Amino acid sequence: MGSQGVSACVWLLCAVLVADGKNVLLIIGDDAGFESDVYNNTAIQTPHLRELAKRSLIFKNAFTSVSSCSPSRGAILTGLPQHQNGIYGLHQDVHHFNSFDDVRSLPLLLSQAGIRTGIIGKKHVGPETVYPFDFAYTEENSSVLQVGRNITRIKLLVRKFLQSKDQRPFFLYVAFHDPHRCGHSQPQYGPFCEKFGNGEPGMGRIPDWTPQYYTPEQVQVPYFIPDTPSARADLAAQYTTIGRMDQGIGLVLDELRSAGHDNDTLVIFSSDNGIPFPNGRTNLYWSGRAEPLLISSPGQPRCRGEVSQSFASLLDITPTILDWFSIPYPDYKVFGKSVTLTGKSLLPALEAEQPWTTVYGSQSHHEITMYYPMRSVQHMQYLLIHNLNFKMPFPIDQDFYVSPTFQDLLNRTISGRPTNWFKTLHSYYLRDRWELYDRSKDPSEVKNIAGDPGYHDLFLTMQEMLRKWQWETSDPWICAPDGVLEEKLDPPCRPLHNEL
Amino acid sequence: MGSQGVSACVWLLCAVLVADGKNVLLIIGDDAGFESDVYNNTAIQTPHLRELAKRSLIFKNAFTSVSSCSPSRGAILTGLPQHQNGIYGLHQDVHHFNSFDDVRSLPLLLSQAGIRTGIIGKKHVGPETVYPFDFAYTEENSSVLQVGRNITRIKLLVRKFLQSKDQRPFFLYVAFHDPHRCGHSQPQYGPFCEKFGNGEPGMGRIPDWTPQYYTPEQVQVPYFIPDTPSARADLAAQYTTIGRMDQGIGLVLDELRSAGHDNDTLVIFSSDNGIPFPNGRTNLYWSGRAEPLLISSPGQPRCRGEVSQSFASLLDITPTILDWFSIPYPDYKVFGKSVTLTGKSLLPALEAEQPWTTVYGSQSHHEITMYYPMRSVQHMQYLLIHNLNFKMPFPIDQDFYVSPTFQDLLNRTISGRPTNWFKTLHSYYLRDRWELYDRSKDPSEVKNIAGDPGYHDLFLTMQEMLRKWQWETSDPWICAPDGVLEEKLDPPCRPLHNEL
Repeated sequence: MGSQGVSACVWLLCAVLVADGKNVLLIIGDDAGFESDVYNNTAIQTPHLRELAKRSLIFKNAFTSVSSCSPSRGAILTGLPQHQNGIYGLHQDVHHFNSFDDVRSLPLLLSQAGIRTGIIGKKHVGPETVYPFDFAYTEENSSVLQVGRNITRIKLLVRKFLQSKDQRPFFLYVAFHDPHRCGHSQPQYGPFCEKFGNGEPGMGRIPDWTPQYYTPEQVQVPYFIPDTPSARADLAAQYTTIGRMDQGIGLVLDELRSAGHDNDTLVIFSSDNGIPFPNGRTNLYWSGRAEPLLISSPGQPRCRGEVSQSFASLLDITPTILDWFSIPYPDYKVFGKSVTLTGKSLLPALEAEQPWTTVYGSQSHHEITMYYPMRSVQHMQYLLIHNLNFKMPFPIDQDFYVSPTFQDLLNRTISGRPTNWFKTLHSYYLRDRWELYDRSKDPSEVKNIAGDPGYHDLFLTMQEMLRKWQWETSDPWICAPDGVLEEKLDPPCRPLHNEL
Repeated sequence: MGSQGVSACVWLLCAVLVADGKNVLLIIGDDAGFESDVYNNTAIQTPHLRELAKRSLIFKNAFTSVSSCSPSRGAILTGLPQHQNGIYGLHQDVHHFNSFDDVRSLPLLLSQAGIRTGIIGKKHVGPETVYPFDFAYTEENSSVLQVGRNITRIKLLVRKFLQSKDQRPFFLYVAFHDPHRCGHSQPQYGPFCEKFGNGEPGMGRIPDWTPQYYTPEQVQVPYFIPDTPSARADLAAQYTTIGRMDQGIGLVLDELRSAGHDNDTLVIFSSDNGIPFPNGRTNLYWSGRAEPLLISSPGQPRCRGEVSQSFASLLDITPTILDWFSIPYPDYKVFGKSVTLTGKSLLPALEAEQPWTTVYGSQSHHEITMYYPMRSVQHMQYLLIHNLNFKMPFPIDQDFYVSPTFQDLLNRTISGRPTNWFKTLHSYYLRDRWELYDRSKDPSEVKNIAGDPGYHDLFLTMQEMLRKWQWETSDPWICAPDGVLEEKLDPPCRPLHNEL
């Protein structure tokens, strides 16, 4: 048998395994980024992510559509951007955003198709009728620290889910609360809750966790974070918390293996949004949108640590999982408007590199008071951002505000000391309405070429791409800020003549 | 018996009647204003409002706390401003704002106290668990045109409610959809649905309605509306629709009388927000906030067409009705924060003029895309408005945009023709962060004295009044736009140093 014969045989075997494969494990980190040796960060140890990566396809160009927790989780679990599924901002407390009642989410569609669904960890979306799970241990019925950061508890809950006598295929969503910040909610555990369960007095002890500690000197400072002692200490704390998540992932995968689901389960690991540092979370810059993404499918040819440069969006997770289970994509109406998934299944990328070069972004609120709607498209190396509320300063969230990194940046700015940052706070607050970057020449996105005549045609083309996507996804902000949407008129965007 | 004895007797009689009085009828017009001879508009005929006014106390200084439909109805039915009850904007369609799940609304408190509750007409608030009614015919289960504008249908529903064998005292909320605009939703019936049910071909026929028609020359143009043929025709259409509501009010009061509840029912008439014309609805200027308010209590000394200058807020309606039923005001927590009513019972005003001189306002969204948070306080003749998103243009809503008045204003502005308006569109769009007006000298609020050194102390005093109310009502926007709210820190408003 020649090599072609072997290859065809391998392909056939894969196909059989895929047809056989019946479960999905989706693992989402909370504000997790590229602090992992999977993504070439050599300062931090994440052996369990590395192990997973060895049998995964590693996406180097994966992006969230929205850099905010609830909207991102809503987008992951519906395949619809926040402006289309209705969860325009955070779900908790006074923010209390929800998806539209008629949205058909992934857990709903799976449940209707006979798949058993489970969630362990941070849910942070609603309403319950849109996001139902058969098995649920979340902040809605438990302490989020216990179900989201106590990896022993998480391990046992995964075991409980997998030990069910229920023979249906399953979808298990493990949503770690690590490595989210804590300074605003539980400062007693350190800025990243890195002390929670570490065995020190008053911190409790998570039996399965062996904390790893880092010094400020050890960390690698990403280009978008000030290189200061405060920020380094902040990153060191983050690393410890990432380590807890990494060990938790190891435990979860062990449970999957012990339950005999090593070879019939699609495993996906990603995060909801950028890391909680300046220019990260709540931004649609690369540092706010880019996400780790590992997809492990038993026997798929590229699931052996291969790297994909194909563009993936977290909006693709719902179509990917529906595709895995061979469930047709939903097609229905909300408020009289067609709802179809604009994302794509990522499964073909597990077999061969794909020509995917475009992703879209859409953000409106984070906290209820943080209105800063943005729409974005990245096409190849080009990133276009439309800031709709651009005359007001970019807003800062409560959790990030109290962070050592931001406090240090603020104090250095006020006192005139060097910030060691690649931007000024002033330029960070005040943004142009349109931002266009050529990331091949300007990877840190500091040179706005939206007004550059040499890029004028590209600018227009990308504006048109963005507009088209906004129409396809029924964006209520489609005419903002220049006009009013009047759907019964032609054209439906009616000018306000307000001279912006 | 001397006159003092008669007075004491009258007082005693009143007290007995009040104790005996057991029901409440709350009538709310939709975008209704002062187009009524009760408020000295002699161009329009509203005989039924006039009849009601003859046995009411007529408030000349009543104000909504928010100039937007759902938030105002939420505020009326909870006694809490929108930022405290959570319904930050419109409830329907993509806007889908709701009050917080734990809010204890008027219908909920009444129901718990053994009062039968009913709603007929436009509800426009949610969630259902917060605003439950025993008897409900609203847009949620019926055509809003039928339950909100078809006065024969409304009459029959009121009859049905009153014919109940249930002997509990009742609270009936009749929420007319008249005289709301229609241009955006049902343009086939004219800009104010003034043709709906008028008997013309295709318009249907409301048996109990005798339409009154007005010519553009007949109307009285308020100071804040351009005096143009288009606006006059628009007002004429509005008058016809107001006439339908007026006749509907007559029918509702006839039903109350026929059912024998003439002398045991507190009747309140008001509206949700200013009329849908420029400077009106969605604004916190006088023309957006000021509301008609009639309160009729059988036998109360001033309920005979007397006029009150005491300041009333629609936030007072819930405490007034609780007071009427002798139900204690609620005191509980939402998201860990105390919720107490900051409004007052208006019942004392029915006996004697009260020294009330202050009302507060709070608005955040109207449509989801219309983020323009404002906070206001009017103290005596002084009005202070804080525009939080002041660097962006004041937004225009879909319904108002297509109105003949606004289209005409827009076209005249573009073509440079005289607008016959007291402002320019430019000045209407672009507002100062702080606006302070002395209405005694400047009743149309065009001369902003916030920067006038002569009013500096007053400005500071009113800022402090506003801030105090925002704290008392747990306003999430309390630190916006200069700072971030950090409740665990002292002071809790932390500066952003963003140089606004």
